[in-house]
Amino acid sequence: MAASRNHPAAPAPARRKSPAAPASPWAALPERQRQREAKRNAVLTTAAQLFNERGFHATSLDDIAAQLHVSKPTLYYYVKNKDEILLACVKKGLHMTLDGIEASRAAGGNAVDQLRACMQVYADIVMQPFGMCLIRVGDEEVPEPARSELRRMKSEIDLAFRRLVAQGVEEGSLNPCDPKMTAFVIAGALSWIGRWYQPEGRYGPEEVAQQCIETLLGGVLRRPPPARRPKKAA
Amino acid sequence: MAASRNHPAAPAPARRKSPAAPASPWAALPERQRQREAKRNAVLTTAAQLFNERGFHATSLDDIAAQLHVSKPTLYYYVKNKDEILLACVKKGLHMTLDGIEASRAAGGNAVDQLRACMQVYADIVMQPFGMCLIRVGDEEVPEPARSELRRMKSEIDLAFRRLVAQGVEEGSLNPCDPKMTAFVIAGALSWIGRWYQPEGRYGPEEVAQQCIETLLGGVLRRPPPARRPKKAA
Repeated sequence: MAASRNHPAAPAPARRKSPAAPASPWAALPERQRQREAKRNAVLTTAAQLFNERGFHATSLDDIAAQLHVSKPTLYYYVKNKDEILLACVKKGLHMTLDGIEASRAAGGNAVDQLRACMQVYADIVMQPFGMCLIRVGDEEVPEPARSELRRMKSEIDLAFRRLVAQGVEEGSLNPCDPKMTAFVIAGALSWIGRWYQPEGRYGPEEVAQQCIETLLGGVLRRPPPARRPKKAA
Repeated sequence: MAASRNHPAAPAPARRKSPAAPASPWAALPERQRQREAKRNAVLTTAAQLFNERGFHATSLDDIAAQLHVSKPTLYYYVKNKDEILLACVKKGLHMTLDGIEASRAAGGNAVDQLRACMQVYADIVMQPFGMCLIRVGDEEVPEPARSELRRMKSEIDLAFRRLVAQGVEEGSLNPCDPKMTAFVIAGALSWIGRWYQPEGRYGPEEVAQQCIETLLGGVLRRPPPARRPKKAA
């Protein structure tokens, strides 16, 4: 049958020359690209969820395919292998964070406003599949040269927190400290959410973020009640 | 030669019946057990350091043997396989933490004193090889039933922090909070030290622990200066 396609005896197909394009069972190219991107995203999201639940090494491409009700060969149309998937997931988590931090800083305000906004962004992201992947999977799992690229992006996040802390100390709104250490305390407590957070738990993501942020900003120790101003003598 | 050992023609060895035991080139049993334990410990410590540097999956038994200048068969005299090593390392980290927390609580004092002592114990341990292993290696890497046992021990640590926070809130020394969430913030920020700490860094372990603990207890935001008591009218 394939040989008959260009057989000289076959009549040339009649071409419609109407101004409207013929209805095709295939989507137009931009739409096809959009669909492909959406499918690749579904593969990555499912993979991230499985990595987070079972661990990277305990998750196979078969598990990912089964979860999506497709065959393993279908997966290969969207991704090369498990290492590529992991790298893409972690990078998505990093890009989301860096974009969110950039937006928080662009929104302006004093250092405390911006720090609070960045903490909010980071806490939100580590409770989502790609962000959780970023926290749960160690850099060591990713082969070079991707590992160095990931570390560079992580240190950008870290530097953004440090700069805001330093600015807050300068403005007098934050306690005097080594901004590097304080940034580690903030990023550590927030990152840890990605290790313990369970979507079916008592608090939703907003409440979790809010409680963690207030604890970090205000501290664990109770502050002495503000002294009352003496009433003016009558 | 082996056959001659019990050869009937061989003369029976003369047994010395002196009260003092004969000098033997082998150490006495308790000493041999101590040496074996010390060697197993060296295997575990070296393994933990390599897991922390390179990741669990990227470290082979050959790497561990090479680091200790022994052959791989020698390792098998002390450990069964890599999974057993990982489990032993993580368990050591957990036991050190639980023992330290128990000692801090036994030392008494109010909730804040005990909480501070437990934070100190935990921070110290995550900067050492076994504690770092506990933080860097996910539970998912450990097969069942050991995984459930590790999770049970981890939740004991978690509960110890929660109880102290709840006690502090009750005593009025800590801010009102959900102790579960506050314990997660504390454990998260301290655990994170095990991810970023580098022995060759600017601060030693004591300084790192102290700065992180003060930031968590006092908070990031600067407290308003305590209001001065009005002077009594002359």
